[in-house]
Amino acid sequence: MLSDPAAAISVAFDKDGILEEMCNGKGYIDMSTVDAETSIKISEGVTSKGGRFLEAPVSGSKKPAEDGQLIILAAGEKGLYDEAIPIFDVLGKKSFFLGQVGNGAKMKLVVNMIMGSMMNGFSEGLELTEKSGLDPRTLLDVLDLGAMANPMFKMKGPSMLKSNYPPAFPLKHQQKDMRLALALGDENAVSMPVAAAANEAFKKARSMGLGDQDFSAVHETVKGPKHP
Amino acid sequence: MLSDPAAAISVAFDKDGILEEMCNGKGYIDMSTVDAETSIKISEGVTSKGGRFLEAPVSGSKKPAEDGQLIILAAGEKGLYDEAIPIFDVLGKKSFFLGQVGNGAKMKLVVNMIMGSMMNGFSEGLELTEKSGLDPRTLLDVLDLGAMANPMFKMKGPSMLKSNYPPAFPLKHQQKDMRLALALGDENAVSMPVAAAANEAFKKARSMGLGDQDFSAVHETVKGPKHP
Amino acid sequence: MLSDPAAAISVAFDKDGILEEMCNGKGYIDMSTVDAETSIKISEGVTSKGGRFLEAPVSGSKKPAEDGQLIILAAGEKGLYDEAIPIFDVLGKKSFFLGQVGNGAKMKLVVNMIMGSMMNGFSEGLELTEKSGLDPRTLLDVLDLGAMANPMFKMKGPSMLKSNYPPAFPLKHQQKDMRLALALGDENAVSMPVAAAANEAFKKARSMGLGDQDFSAVHETVKGPKHP
Amino acid sequence: MLSDPAAAISVAFDKDGILEEMCNGKGYIDMSTVDAETSIKISEGVTSKGGRFLEAPVSGSKKPAEDGQLIILAAGEKGLYDEAIPIFDVLGKKSFFLGQVGNGAKMKLVVNMIMGSMMNGFSEGLELTEKSGLDPRTLLDVLDLGAMANPMFKMKGPSMLKSNYPPAFPLKHQQKDMRLALALGDENAVSMPVAAAANEAFKKARSMGLGDQDFSAVHETVKGPKHP
Repeated sequence: MLSDPAAAISVAFDKDGILEEMCNGKGYIDMSTVDAETSIKISEGVTSKGGRFLEAPVSGSKKPAEDGQLIILAAGEKGLYDEAIPIFDVLGKKSFFLGQVGNGAKMKLVVNMIMGSMMNGFSEGLELTEKSGLDPRTLLDVLDLGAMANPMFKMKGPSMLKSNYPPAFPLKHQQKDMRLALALGDENAVSMPVAAAANEAFKKARSMGLGDQDFSAVHETVKGPKHP
Repeated sequence: MLSDPAAAISVAFDKDGILEEMCNGKGYIDMSTVDAETSIKISEGVTSKGGRFLEAPVSGSKKPAEDGQLIILAAGEKGLYDEAIPIFDVLGKKSFFLGQVGNGAKMKLVVNMIMGSMMNGFSEGLELTEKSGLDPRTLLDVLDLGAMANPMFKMKGPSMLKSNYPPAFPLKHQQKDMRLALALGDENAVSMPVAAAANEAFKKARSMGLGDQDFSAVHETVKGPKHP
Repeated sequence: MLSDPAAAISVAFDKDGILEEMCNGKGYIDMSTVDAETSIKISEGVTSKGGRFLEAPVSGSKKPAEDGQLIILAAGEKGLYDEAIPIFDVLGKKSFFLGQVGNGAKMKLVVNMIMGSMMNGFSEGLELTEKSGLDPRTLLDVLDLGAMANPMFKMKGPSMLKSNYPPAFPLKHQQKDMRLALALGDENAVSMPVAAAANEAFKKARSMGLGDQDFSAVHETVKGPKHP
Repeated sequence: MLSDPAAAISVAFDKDGILEEMCNGKGYIDMSTVDAETSIKISEGVTSKGGRFLEAPVSGSKKPAEDGQLIILAAGEKGLYDEAIPIFDVLGKKSFFLGQVGNGAKMKLVVNMIMGSMMNGFSEGLELTEKSGLDPRTLLDVLDLGAMANPMFKMKGPSMLKSNYPPAFPLKHQQKDMRLALALGDENAVSMPVAAAANEAFKKARSMGLGDQDFSAVHETVKGPKHP
């Protein structure tokens, strides 16, 4: 579970790397979150040596990882996936096999794109509540009782109201994922006006110097001056 | 719990209506979903006769109503609210007192605005999944296990994938609520680009003749031609 | 040519107003920019007294007015329009007869909506040029030579680059016109995602306290921190 | 003036290509519209052989080319630019020297981005006019007399009203340029919500199979069903 594409490539291809000892029958599972191209490149390296490859990025951050409650989005060699299930059952609460290499990365982009649109819709609602003279903490309570109740609103809402954004998932990474998801839409001619508007809000937040804060810091972009 | 502002006004002000028998000490609770202006007009009618008024729109549709699981957004006369709590406890799982008349209506608009942005983000994600060659049913499973899990995605997702939109909440009403929420933002100088993009998608759906379908029919606006 | 709907209504309906002396055959031409509803109300007042009515809002601000170069968007009584042509020929370079009362107001909203989208597209381009290390004054020159050359870019561009927005047309009025144009779209189920995004940018500008500046001050909303 | 990056790369680097005969003092001017990366790659090839390089993409399509009325956006070796001026004076009505290689490509992207936002604003206005019961041909006349008058509206408007989009500049190329302009904004943290909304409209048009039509075919995306 490496930090980024460069690290994943390095561990696979560099001196003393994975490929040097790769051979027939061996399997390599990369659980990093990388783009589909990186994943495919590593896969080709592994299989050219006779090995088997599985990408297995995860959904969930620090706490779910500690609790073994990750969601595992695997794709690649089905036989290797089957062998890995006992390990995945320890690390995660659920694993999915999604087909060919690259599909794990794509599924993760879609999930994060929806997350970004939700976060913006939520953030706009909090601000509208406050500027309309209502108590935004009541909005949190109302949302948590209804059809839109979800852990993210519950977890992030209270600190957003305090303009407090400790980075569980940095905004610049969230914006990068939205950009990549929109690029995936571009390839497939899928028009996504709400995700595009959300992406521009994250870019606005970056221009305000909020890239290293939690992605919920996009809340700052909808704020105008405070009521007197 | 009347159908619209016109009905609420009629029941209050017309011949044989509420106001004819209104007098000192009597209370009137209107649980219709109306705009703040209508609510204030009825409130003024009631209080001018010496009566007490409470607006109490609800969040939740058919099933929660049958199960006594509504969320009640009350505003107006606090004393009347206190007296009504035993009744609200039967109808709903939770009631809120939000202050002056009009605040119940406003809170409901904010909730529905967030709902509209979420529905669009979700709908775009479903389409992107499908066009990228992934199984959108897997997306539903992944979402339901993570930080964005919510009853609405769980409930609406499977029928959206079948282009099936039986009207639990008609799209034209959802679009009207988004318009009113954006108007509330206009009054208070709150810029809400994601809600605005979502609103235009609902308008697109109306122009496609989907106004009487469920609001999840906005899914049709992101669909291009099917893969061969 | 009165300042707003309230003034137009007052001059028509109040004591010593137009209607007191209105009678068969007399004509009244209101050149104020008002909404269709106000115009229709005045029209009904005038015609109920036997008079004839024409709304005739103008496109063009201070300089074209002084030079007799306005564009006149007339609607209402065709006979009265024909009689007024010699006057319109002095005030404006061109007049249009658009049919029933309200159509003049609507045409003006459409024109101003397009103006708002153009101004935002232009403003984003200026900022992108600057942040990409190009000279935005060159962009002005390039634009002025090509298929998009127009007086507005030529006139407003240089002062926008100096963050200088003397109010020829106040931003709050421009935003109001975009809101009314979007409302007209709502009535007729026309989805306009670009105008909606532009409107939110103008609202952002209002929240930044720029409502009384020229509408080109929307440029401030796309600016991030300066390059060092 | 080659068709795309692949062609430009091939003519420079392939067998019997430019580089084979490149040597000290020779100059190479590539007038193709390519991205900055391609331009830089060719520049490096040329200069590594001791040659001098100039990128010089043009603004203007078929007619201006025939009439020698192009706008030339040059960047690279200033000495070579100075030598080329007599040639540029024949091909174009004006040439600009924009500094380092890549700047010509970037300037062109900004120009086309503004063009895309304008085209969408215009297209929405035409549709709003029509659905509001006004004559969109009158809108064309009104626009052409005012501060927004520009050759593009004048040239494209009448055919757009007939849903006639003969490809002067194919929509898929326009959408690609908007994507690249938004990517340039992403690099430099410039948030551009109106361009993003316009880009999604062009993507919608692509999903409707309009990629090979003129970029004004984005007009089809705002059309709902016709009035009866």
